[in-house]
Amino acid sequence: MNVVNTGSGNVATVSARISPAGGLDILSRNEVVRLRGASGSGLHALLRRCALAVLTSGSISDDPRAILERYPDFDIQVLQQDRGIKIELSHAPAQAFVDGQIIRGINELLVAVVRDIVYVATQLEHADDGLDASDRLTEDVFEILRNARILKPHADPNLVVCWGGHSISREEYDYTKLVGYQLGLRGLDICTGCGPGAMKGPMKGATIAHAKQRHRHNRYIGLTEPGIIAAESPNPIVNHLVIMPDIEKRLEAFVRIGHGIIVFPGGVGTAEEILYLLGILLHPDNADTPFPLIFTGPKESAAYFEQIDRFLRLTLGDDVARRYQIIVDDPATVARAMVKGVEKVRHHRLDTKDAFFFNWALQVPYAFQLPFQPDHASMRALQLRHGRPRHELAADLRRAFSGIVAGNVKEEGVRAIEQHGPFDIDGDSDIMQALDKLLQAFVEQQRMKLPGGAAYVPCYRVCMP
Amino acid sequence: MNVVNTGSGNVATVSARISPAGGLDILSRNEVVRLRGASGSGLHALLRRCALAVLTSGSISDDPRAILERYPDFDIQVLQQDRGIKIELSHAPAQAFVDGQIIRGINELLVAVVRDIVYVATQLEHADDGLDASDRLTEDVFEILRNARILKPHADPNLVVCWGGHSISREEYDYTKLVGYQLGLRGLDICTGCGPGAMKGPMKGATIAHAKQRHRHNRYIGLTEPGIIAAESPNPIVNHLVIMPDIEKRLEAFVRIGHGIIVFPGGVGTAEEILYLLGILLHPDNADTPFPLIFTGPKESAAYFEQIDRFLRLTLGDDVARRYQIIVDDPATVARAMVKGVEKVRHHRLDTKDAFFFNWALQVPYAFQLPFQPDHASMRALQLRHGRPRHELAADLRRAFSGIVAGNVKEEGVRAIEQHGPFDIDGDSDIMQALDKLLQAFVEQQRMKLPGGAAYVPCYRVCMP
Amino acid sequence: MNVVNTGSGNVATVSARISPAGGLDILSRNEVVRLRGASGSGLHALLRRCALAVLTSGSISDDPRAILERYPDFDIQVLQQDRGIKIELSHAPAQAFVDGQIIRGINELLVAVVRDIVYVATQLEHADDGLDASDRLTEDVFEILRNARILKPHADPNLVVCWGGHSISREEYDYTKLVGYQLGLRGLDICTGCGPGAMKGPMKGATIAHAKQRHRHNRYIGLTEPGIIAAESPNPIVNHLVIMPDIEKRLEAFVRIGHGIIVFPGGVGTAEEILYLLGILLHPDNADTPFPLIFTGPKESAAYFEQIDRFLRLTLGDDVARRYQIIVDDPATVARAMVKGVEKVRHHRLDTKDAFFFNWALQVPYAFQLPFQPDHASMRALQLRHGRPRHELAADLRRAFSGIVAGNVKEEGVRAIEQHGPFDIDGDSDIMQALDKLLQAFVEQQRMKLPGGAAYVPCYRVCMP
Amino acid sequence: MNVVNTGSGNVATVSARISPAGGLDILSRNEVVRLRGASGSGLHALLRRCALAVLTSGSISDDPRAILERYPDFDIQVLQQDRGIKIELSHAPAQAFVDGQIIRGINELLVAVVRDIVYVATQLEHADDGLDASDRLTEDVFEILRNARILKPHADPNLVVCWGGHSISREEYDYTKLVGYQLGLRGLDICTGCGPGAMKGPMKGATIAHAKQRHRHNRYIGLTEPGIIAAESPNPIVNHLVIMPDIEKRLEAFVRIGHGIIVFPGGVGTAEEILYLLGILLHPDNADTPFPLIFTGPKESAAYFEQIDRFLRLTLGDDVARRYQIIVDDPATVARAMVKGVEKVRHHRLDTKDAFFFNWALQVPYAFQLPFQPDHASMRALQLRHGRPRHELAADLRRAFSGIVAGNVKEEGVRAIEQHGPFDIDGDSDIMQALDKLLQAFVEQQRMKLPGGAAYVPCYRVCMP
Repeated sequence: MNVVNTGSGNVATVSARISPAGGLDILSRNEVVRLRGASGSGLHALLRRCALAVLTSGSISDDPRAILERYPDFDIQVLQQDRGIKIELSHAPAQAFVDGQIIRGINELLVAVVRDIVYVATQLEHADDGLDASDRLTEDVFEILRNARILKPHADPNLVVCWGGHSISREEYDYTKLVGYQLGLRGLDICTGCGPGAMKGPMKGATIAHAKQRHRHNRYIGLTEPGIIAAESPNPIVNHLVIMPDIEKRLEAFVRIGHGIIVFPGGVGTAEEILYLLGILLHPDNADTPFPLIFTGPKESAAYFEQIDRFLRLTLGDDVARRYQIIVDDPATVARAMVKGVEKVRHHRLDTKDAFFFNWALQVPYAFQLPFQPDHASMRALQLRHGRPRHELAADLRRAFSGIVAGNVKEEGVRAIEQHGPFDIDGDSDIMQALDKLLQAFVEQQRMKLPGGAAYVPCYRVCMP
Repeated sequence: MNVVNTGSGNVATVSARISPAGGLDILSRNEVVRLRGASGSGLHALLRRCALAVLTSGSISDDPRAILERYPDFDIQVLQQDRGIKIELSHAPAQAFVDGQIIRGINELLVAVVRDIVYVATQLEHADDGLDASDRLTEDVFEILRNARILKPHADPNLVVCWGGHSISREEYDYTKLVGYQLGLRGLDICTGCGPGAMKGPMKGATIAHAKQRHRHNRYIGLTEPGIIAAESPNPIVNHLVIMPDIEKRLEAFVRIGHGIIVFPGGVGTAEEILYLLGILLHPDNADTPFPLIFTGPKESAAYFEQIDRFLRLTLGDDVARRYQIIVDDPATVARAMVKGVEKVRHHRLDTKDAFFFNWALQVPYAFQLPFQPDHASMRALQLRHGRPRHELAADLRRAFSGIVAGNVKEEGVRAIEQHGPFDIDGDSDIMQALDKLLQAFVEQQRMKLPGGAAYVPCYRVCMP
Repeated sequence: MNVVNTGSGNVATVSARISPAGGLDILSRNEVVRLRGASGSGLHALLRRCALAVLTSGSISDDPRAILERYPDFDIQVLQQDRGIKIELSHAPAQAFVDGQIIRGINELLVAVVRDIVYVATQLEHADDGLDASDRLTEDVFEILRNARILKPHADPNLVVCWGGHSISREEYDYTKLVGYQLGLRGLDICTGCGPGAMKGPMKGATIAHAKQRHRHNRYIGLTEPGIIAAESPNPIVNHLVIMPDIEKRLEAFVRIGHGIIVFPGGVGTAEEILYLLGILLHPDNADTPFPLIFTGPKESAAYFEQIDRFLRLTLGDDVARRYQIIVDDPATVARAMVKGVEKVRHHRLDTKDAFFFNWALQVPYAFQLPFQPDHASMRALQLRHGRPRHELAADLRRAFSGIVAGNVKEEGVRAIEQHGPFDIDGDSDIMQALDKLLQAFVEQQRMKLPGGAAYVPCYRVCMP
Repeated sequence: MNVVNTGSGNVATVSARISPAGGLDILSRNEVVRLRGASGSGLHALLRRCALAVLTSGSISDDPRAILERYPDFDIQVLQQDRGIKIELSHAPAQAFVDGQIIRGINELLVAVVRDIVYVATQLEHADDGLDASDRLTEDVFEILRNARILKPHADPNLVVCWGGHSISREEYDYTKLVGYQLGLRGLDICTGCGPGAMKGPMKGATIAHAKQRHRHNRYIGLTEPGIIAAESPNPIVNHLVIMPDIEKRLEAFVRIGHGIIVFPGGVGTAEEILYLLGILLHPDNADTPFPLIFTGPKESAAYFEQIDRFLRLTLGDDVARRYQIIVDDPATVARAMVKGVEKVRHHRLDTKDAFFFNWALQVPYAFQLPFQPDHASMRALQLRHGRPRHELAADLRRAFSGIVAGNVKEEGVRAIEQHGPFDIDGDSDIMQALDKLLQAFVEQQRMKLPGGAAYVPCYRVCMP
């Protein structure tokens, strides 16, 4: 490794040529060419952006553009050499290095970035193979995960997805570590969306527990996508990173590979994820598919899940509560319940001869796979009314939350709000009131944090009759 | 594994459901469906044919159809199950089993068959990516080999390709074992075209030497293609099998992954291979590319290589002999020369920063990549004349031999000869005389063996002026 | 594993038959018999005591008898069975289990306990082999460590021994974690004396860093002995535990296998260790042997090392300070200095052709190998006077601290003090004053903590002229 | 590796410093010193002799002194260095090297030689531990095998011991290969006494079968002892070599670790082995211990086992035949019978909770453990008479054969015969006649081959009444 300590402005940077660790075996001459800036394919810009997120792993900022501005001279080139691939980094963030050597975990994440970007760009276009659109999208999710070596045959189900906010309170964060520790003691692996907070705590706790249990080949899977990787850069504990091409494929990946899901407190984004999952689970085709789902937090956060629970029962019927379990302030019980739930999943897969490593049987309707483009028109068009099939109402509720996330923090969404004022959301009055109350509670509990810490100005307007 | 001993007619067969060994991790639902007979894609027929060849591994027959007729009830189905893939075999040849358990090496070869058939069928169609036709074909060769995990980064060059006849004399066969032994003692791995004779001997010799040297992760690579796998079924010592989609990709794979080539005595097929390789090496762009090439045999076969040598010098000029070395009856010297040649290859790759595991720098002209369809017209059109660029003349000479192989043993070729008489081959008279002499010698040395052992009736007519 | 949840009194216990993890391969019939209680060899009592310490790993108590009283029905039996050894636990502490399964790390520690007890009892008696007494003791240390597979050939020096108090302040504990983290980032492994505080912090920090660096085969070595294992039970992060037969062999093991030593703040025990090491390093034969030694703590603890430094300079001369480095509040600098020091060790071993894994060259005088039995007579006999060879004075100073440790917490020492009053320690007046000042400071800084937290009543009396 | 090609006289030799492969981790300073010639311990001479046998592996000579005379300047020194041990060879046989590099398998055998010589010399003297003499000897056998890592817990029984002559006919040798191949196909490992003939064939056959079955971690165990290693040097296929200190411990090791035994045709030595085993199996304490024992050979050798069978029935009663099975010319049936027998052993060990890896339950009477010193007096004292307990008669018969082996080929025995004429063997007349007939048959079948190929002059005289 050739290392040059470089400084661009007042930021410490390092330039180095590194040997990729782990799985990036070999690229073809063509693939290497396409990653070069000169090819004009846009791939290089994507590579540069994702690589920078990985190299600033552990930094916390909600502003995705901030990092790019901080390292304007950063560049990455992929080279084919005699014994394989080399990655050349220029003016890279010094924090990724220890005494001039790149941290190996970060090296592996870089490898994942290159691997996924190349794969999606070169291997995912298929000649028409007769699959319908929904099946084709599921097939794509499968192929990306397979190429990333995430799908493990011969392994018993043990993958727990953890969702929750990335900016949570200290108590909540410590609680996620304790839950992770209890999961780890029981040999469960962790999958999250990368980033800090509830995405990182369970992995940290599981790391200590796995060390005590000598659990080797432990998996800390991070699923991200180009739009959020900069804001939620993967912690180096993540030892399997996959960059899915868009949010919907990322969500589908979560529910296809996870054998159970734990939801910690979070904000609108977490609410969106809950509605996404319940929307799928409420689909009649999935009625008999076991899927352990646990909402949990420390006792300080008990109110949070009461509110969520009330909102879900009101909008989707009391029956919806059969699909989840709320456990307050008891990490060991959470872990035991998850072990039990995963065991049910295992038996169900055995009975139905379905794969352990990919939930083929789960019906993910095309509506949940198609991206939702939130704007004033599409937000107003949502049908938040009683009387619809529950999974369709859930889908629209999920879209409502998705729009608010966009209006809060995504570049396009923010601009739309600036130009045209808040989104109008309309529906049955009790639903509207419940929604309003829930969102107010999020604001009060400071779960609507914004870049820079400014006071929250709502990007939505609930239309009361 | 469920085993049923079944007998169809007087042939011992076994029906069993097996867990695939080694690399066949996971298939998508779609891929499994496409392998089913019902899909009408033709994939199932291909799978069945190749699987049967693998299951009769070690049987010797030059007649590809004979095996299919011997096991008319044989079938294979691929199933997706909870822990991965299962392969269901019905009425499979009993010789692949020991006390009802499939031999693990054969299991691995089956896995390779499924893997390559699926990959070529589903992953090799690319949207137009701007590559020219020749580069696209090389890219395909690369991707198939990569998917088969043949390309190993971080490994020093050590792969020796062995060519030669599959029906050779006992002395010649024993000699190939001794050469393999000496190669193995020096840590070299072996790649051949599968099948018996010179394809098997070097692997057997290397196996004993590798055991003595505790050489682990040894590679016995077999490259085949659907047209010949039935006639030259892979020996179970082969631990990496790749089924390339056609002969030209198979030949290109040999020269891209081999770090040196040893040619043992053989027949017209071997002559074709020699001309293919020399045609490429004589291309001006490859003038500086080192490529160790050794012709060797026991002293009984000394005459064979003298004839080849004379023919090559006459047609391609004395200069051609700089590209190969003839070593008679001295396995240790062959191995030492190969070690030395491979070391030169290593230095050249380091100097040119080229991959160790794939010879990107070698120029394989498009003419050598395109299939040659031998018929009376195309054979007559060959330009076997002095004065042409040497690599072009070599290409036409190779086509001449290729046509004779087809006329001898391939279904279409044999039918053409039956209908229209022998192929006419024309050219400068000294070349014609030399060619005739060479082919006569092959006949006399019984290197033109035919299915059933009938006396050889030439399928060609050299036009003497 | 057969599990029975048993309760003896109000303490949760578990009875289970477990398969030993990892290294406990096989015992002979004779060895199994000797471990049984009935054999009357005393081995069973030793086994029971050490096993219980391991099973209560993580519990904190300075009173070694407390644990035995808490689990009066606990028993352990070793059985020879078809596939190897089984360990049968009765009424074992429930905390070692998760849902009825023993934590694997604790299982491995149990295995180490059995292994070392058997080895010392059966394999360490040698016929007279002509070695002198000192060499024989070193040979014993070597053989115990070799049998425990602690000695790794072919590995570069990277083992850092961390010493310091087991009951330190929160700031000091957090600091030891940060130092461990920085050491771990640089690929260094950790060896401590087991137990909490400065023995545990560096391992925890290194665990996270090793995870980020994907440092596999990391070693967290704990060296203990039967007399202290109950008071300082090994944390399950320890993945290599060795039970040396006595304190002197344990100290010799530290300096023979460590490539450098870091001393964190501690009490009298830590002072004893410092004097032991400096006593050896000041021996003229060791003058040219590099041995990195760093004293470090957070800025709150700066005064501690100033006092130690003053005391060492006064008693052993200013020159002694060339043997250590004091670094305050700077974990990264500590780690970098250690890397540099270990590199020097590496070069020295290469130059002198000495083993990397065992410091044969270090001269450990017989006086440092022989146990010191502290009582009123032996304490009074110490010669704490100027004018003696420095390493001899250091040896007596170490004995003085050793006696105070015994008078504070060891059963025999405490009883002696109760009967005859405090130990008298005599010597030159400036040394006496310095010693008194140092011990007073320990008291003020609460580094003389006692079981039960009672106020400290000194067990010694410094004789002032 | 530093290599110097040296020639001493007309024999090609190599001098080299090698890094020991595999298991020779670390020696203590004391152990290294003791291996040096200067120490006068006799260990160096033993080391030199065994090392030379290993380095001439594959050479065939029945005269143990011949090799030492051929390489008079050969020497070996063991050095302790920074990363572990180095072995320095001077004027070593060139055949152990390929292009100046030692063959790795031979390197591993050298390591085994050093390991066992050091262990027996330094670790096998025990203080009086109350074991009786017979148990102590069994304990020694166990400890030597454990130190050599031969005893594998957690592995199902699969070790087949093959006995038979080292100079057998080509047909018999090829047959042993076929049997080894069939055993290997069924996942069985092989243990023999090292050397050529029936000791090597089964390993060679199993090597090919294991390669086809991808059977990794296959074990080809060779058990030898200093007195015969020179005459029967281990083939490099042997990947676990143990040098037991004497013949009786070697025989005990065979029956303690083997899960079944196959006897191929051989000479007096083989007869001795058969009597040793049957003597043990006929002991009343072993009546219920299953132990598969198969006599087998090609059809050319059918007469051999008929003679053995007749002799055994006559001397030990027809009942003895229940303990063995004779299978002629059917390798697959032999292998299937052995699989079945080993399965019975497995169940018996499970039932009796005995170890899989060491047959503790087998009663080996002290008489079979004590060395027999054959001379004219001890031979005459044998009681070959009916009416004795069968296992005692078997023991004396075994001693008779042992004496004939010594009189034929061992230095001391040959000298005794030269001085005092043939041994007299006396007993009941029918036993004497049967013995004479059997020995005559051995002579006729050329199973009494002598160094140099001279005609056989009997070293015994059967006393006919």
